[in-house]
Amino acid sequence: MFESAEIGHTIDKAAYKAEEATLREALLDVQYELKQRGEFPLLILIHGMDGAGRGETLNQINEWLDPRLIHTAAFDTPNDDARERPWMWRYWRELPKKGRIGMFFGSYYSDALFDRVDGKINRDTFDKQLFDILRFERMLANDGVMVMKFWLHLSQEKQRKRFKAMEKDPATAWRVTATDWQHLEQYERIKKNAEHMMRLSNTSYAPWLVVDGDDPNYRSLAVGRALLQALRQRLEMTQVAAARSDAAPITPPADNTLLLESLQLDYPLEKDEYKVQLATLQGRLNGLVRHPKFAQHSLVLAFEGNDAAGKGGAIRRITQALDARTYRIVPVAAPTEEERAMPWLWRFWRHLPGKGKVTIFDRTWYGRVLVERVEGFATTADWTRAYYEINDFEHQLGDNGAIVLKFWLAISSDEQMTRFKLREETGFKRFKITEEDWRNRDKWDEYKVAVCDMIDRTSTSAVPWTLVPANNKYYARIKVLTTVCEALEAKLGSA
Amino acid sequence: MFESAEIGHTIDKAAYKAEEATLREALLDVQYELKQRGEFPLLILIHGMDGAGRGETLNQINEWLDPRLIHTAAFDTPNDDARERPWMWRYWRELPKKGRIGMFFGSYYSDALFDRVDGKINRDTFDKQLFDILRFERMLANDGVMVMKFWLHLSQEKQRKRFKAMEKDPATAWRVTATDWQHLEQYERIKKNAEHMMRLSNTSYAPWLVVDGDDPNYRSLAVGRALLQALRQRLEMTQVAAARSDAAPITPPADNTLLLESLQLDYPLEKDEYKVQLATLQGRLNGLVRHPKFAQHSLVLAFEGNDAAGKGGAIRRITQALDARTYRIVPVAAPTEEERAMPWLWRFWRHLPGKGKVTIFDRTWYGRVLVERVEGFATTADWTRAYYEINDFEHQLGDNGAIVLKFWLAISSDEQMTRFKLREETGFKRFKITEEDWRNRDKWDEYKVAVCDMIDRTSTSAVPWTLVPANNKYYARIKVLTTVCEALEAKLGSA
Repeated sequence: MFESAEIGHTIDKAAYKAEEATLREALLDVQYELKQRGEFPLLILIHGMDGAGRGETLNQINEWLDPRLIHTAAFDTPNDDARERPWMWRYWRELPKKGRIGMFFGSYYSDALFDRVDGKINRDTFDKQLFDILRFERMLANDGVMVMKFWLHLSQEKQRKRFKAMEKDPATAWRVTATDWQHLEQYERIKKNAEHMMRLSNTSYAPWLVVDGDDPNYRSLAVGRALLQALRQRLEMTQVAAARSDAAPITPPADNTLLLESLQLDYPLEKDEYKVQLATLQGRLNGLVRHPKFAQHSLVLAFEGNDAAGKGGAIRRITQALDARTYRIVPVAAPTEEERAMPWLWRFWRHLPGKGKVTIFDRTWYGRVLVERVEGFATTADWTRAYYEINDFEHQLGDNGAIVLKFWLAISSDEQMTRFKLREETGFKRFKITEEDWRNRDKWDEYKVAVCDMIDRTSTSAVPWTLVPANNKYYARIKVLTTVCEALEAKLGSA
Repeated sequence: MFESAEIGHTIDKAAYKAEEATLREALLDVQYELKQRGEFPLLILIHGMDGAGRGETLNQINEWLDPRLIHTAAFDTPNDDARERPWMWRYWRELPKKGRIGMFFGSYYSDALFDRVDGKINRDTFDKQLFDILRFERMLANDGVMVMKFWLHLSQEKQRKRFKAMEKDPATAWRVTATDWQHLEQYERIKKNAEHMMRLSNTSYAPWLVVDGDDPNYRSLAVGRALLQALRQRLEMTQVAAARSDAAPITPPADNTLLLESLQLDYPLEKDEYKVQLATLQGRLNGLVRHPKFAQHSLVLAFEGNDAAGKGGAIRRITQALDARTYRIVPVAAPTEEERAMPWLWRFWRHLPGKGKVTIFDRTWYGRVLVERVEGFATTADWTRAYYEINDFEHQLGDNGAIVLKFWLAISSDEQMTRFKLREETGFKRFKITEEDWRNRDKWDEYKVAVCDMIDRTSTSAVPWTLVPANNKYYARIKVLTTVCEALEAKLGSA
């Protein structure tokens, strides 16, 4: 895999100078077109052997292009914020927005590669992490992100020479670190594992490019030309051709019987009894969140439901039991301009709680397969692949120790009508009913199908949906609180 | 994920009868169209809970459709032949050919799932195996194979009832096995891991369909309709739309310096000296293949090279050292009709050696990225993705204990001309030179680029290419034999 990058490619100064000026101009042209069109971002990952010119390449790209439109991020040891969240969180945070170029110096690949090289993980875990990475990059590609991955290469012999030369010169000696010498020792192990990693992750939508890093002229032109060629090619593609359809099809049940229709919605619970139970449950919840073991977990509550099903009321009964410093409510409406410029799940990743914290989503990422599906805001290809992406997202949360609970508050069509009318009549509740609510109501049946498909495809043992019969709001609130308490007890008891 | 399959779907007898006749006719229609067109095969995997009607479904499909065009394979514990070869080998053997339907009762999914359920593998290894499966299915899809995966579901309660009812009836009691009762015990564990497995492997090109298995009428119609719909949809697609481009792009080196050009082709070796070395090496090789540890390995030798570079001569010097019962030579020419009806790598999988055996390929799977590329027999999408598929193939061989060595015998253009002329002049060698050899020679430069791309993309630490300077055929033969001996010693010494 590295043979061609070890035969000693060179380009002399004159040839380099002759090409550089035109290359630079062409690169600036495509960069501005990328920005003007604002349709997709380019993410560049810079990897390679120590001493192969990774830093120089980063600087070269910044020098050739307009650096104001480049977002560079260097990843070293994760900080506390990152350690408390799923592996991919810190990479999500630094993704470039549409029209821009992002450059990662080191990335999730370095995490996996060096954990393997240092023997922290075995071969199977290495492969599993590469599988995680592949799904992440596929998701990026499906969301239109263009990904290019460079591996700057250097033979072991040349690496040794490079380090020695740098050490001799007082101006560069400081740049050769203990880690560099250690990596030289581990050269063969790094090379072997890098090769395996690149083999498994060299995909059409996020290809690797191996570049001989020895001669700076060669290296710069190789990287610059590859960037230019790939960007031009992508900009020439129509939007339609760039879109990938990557989702399993949806088939309705053969007898047209839907899960929601088998759900009993009315359960009795009197107000007095409710008040007694509520007080007990809130006390229990308060204690659980202060449990020492909760500091190793986090709690993510996701609320969905029919309009007027009582999500707000249920959420308030939870927050009443919590310290305001530990929880945050994230009301989810239409995405902002900033959010629309990022892969669609980004706006949920940004709100993930750290350890010992609670985040409550009032409406959630499930909007993708509910309102965006029904109203046609998302293409079929987009919302069908979202099931896979959502499952993956929640799986990453769970792997990181988060307790994720999802509630669907279900009311009958009649009950909704009663509540809508009551809201219109009651002064302080009038802001809660809009034209849109009435429009949604007209699409009751379409939403019902969407909800059933959603539950079928995203209710998993690890992160199940709780269907909450909500015609009686007291019953619904108690059901939600009980579920939260029991889930916490199950986790903290066994943790 | 299984919610909808547990609410108790049913279809009554009258409704079933009314639909069955038309469904069956429609299914036969699409089956014959599939056969007539002969463009792609359909592979159906049947999985699910014990007692959910997997066997009945298999029989139902065979009854509705023309069973002569269906190839059914049931996979239980692998036999000796399969155990000696890579995991996927026994599934490769049973793949349906174009125009036909293959049905697998149990599959690679059962292997992974029950190894996990029985605690034989940990979570990471489970994920790694799912990643292996995904790459396999993607390869199938890229080769045009249509894959449908059914999961027939049954709740634990219904499973228990089913077993009890069957035990009571003397006619069916024998069908309830100890494994069934054991799986009932493990129900939750199976369900949880099946869900995870299906979540990660539910792709656009090989989707899972979960079907409530409780009511036979419902189950049959659900499966039948899904088959019909999916086949119709695929048959309506044009060939072009069905083809997937799934390969990373190829970029030439920025200075146009090719690896092969840096190779020194002439090395001196006199005939007398050659004879001495040859005898020693052949003795060494003979001993190595009879080494007790070799019984746990196998040896795969792949020979490629310029026309007239001396592959045949080199191979003969190897086989002279071997017992004819241990080796097999596979000369690779254009694929046969049978081979063309299968995924392209199938014709190499079928020849894999068992433990303690040697297989020598005279020309290999690399034809895909050499002659098929240069002559335009394969589309760009096909040969570019072949690098990934080849690496994966060789990786599976290596994982299974095979020692894989690849030789490129390189001669100069002048040397080739000398040999061509000599062949034309020498009576018994005249059969070795054809019009095609001359035509290939005209494309010398194109082949050179193809060879360099091949080595760059498929030479890995685990399975490297050995470039053999072959202008001197004595030198070349000694180089090949030495490489084989050293590789065997490295493996058997450290094993």
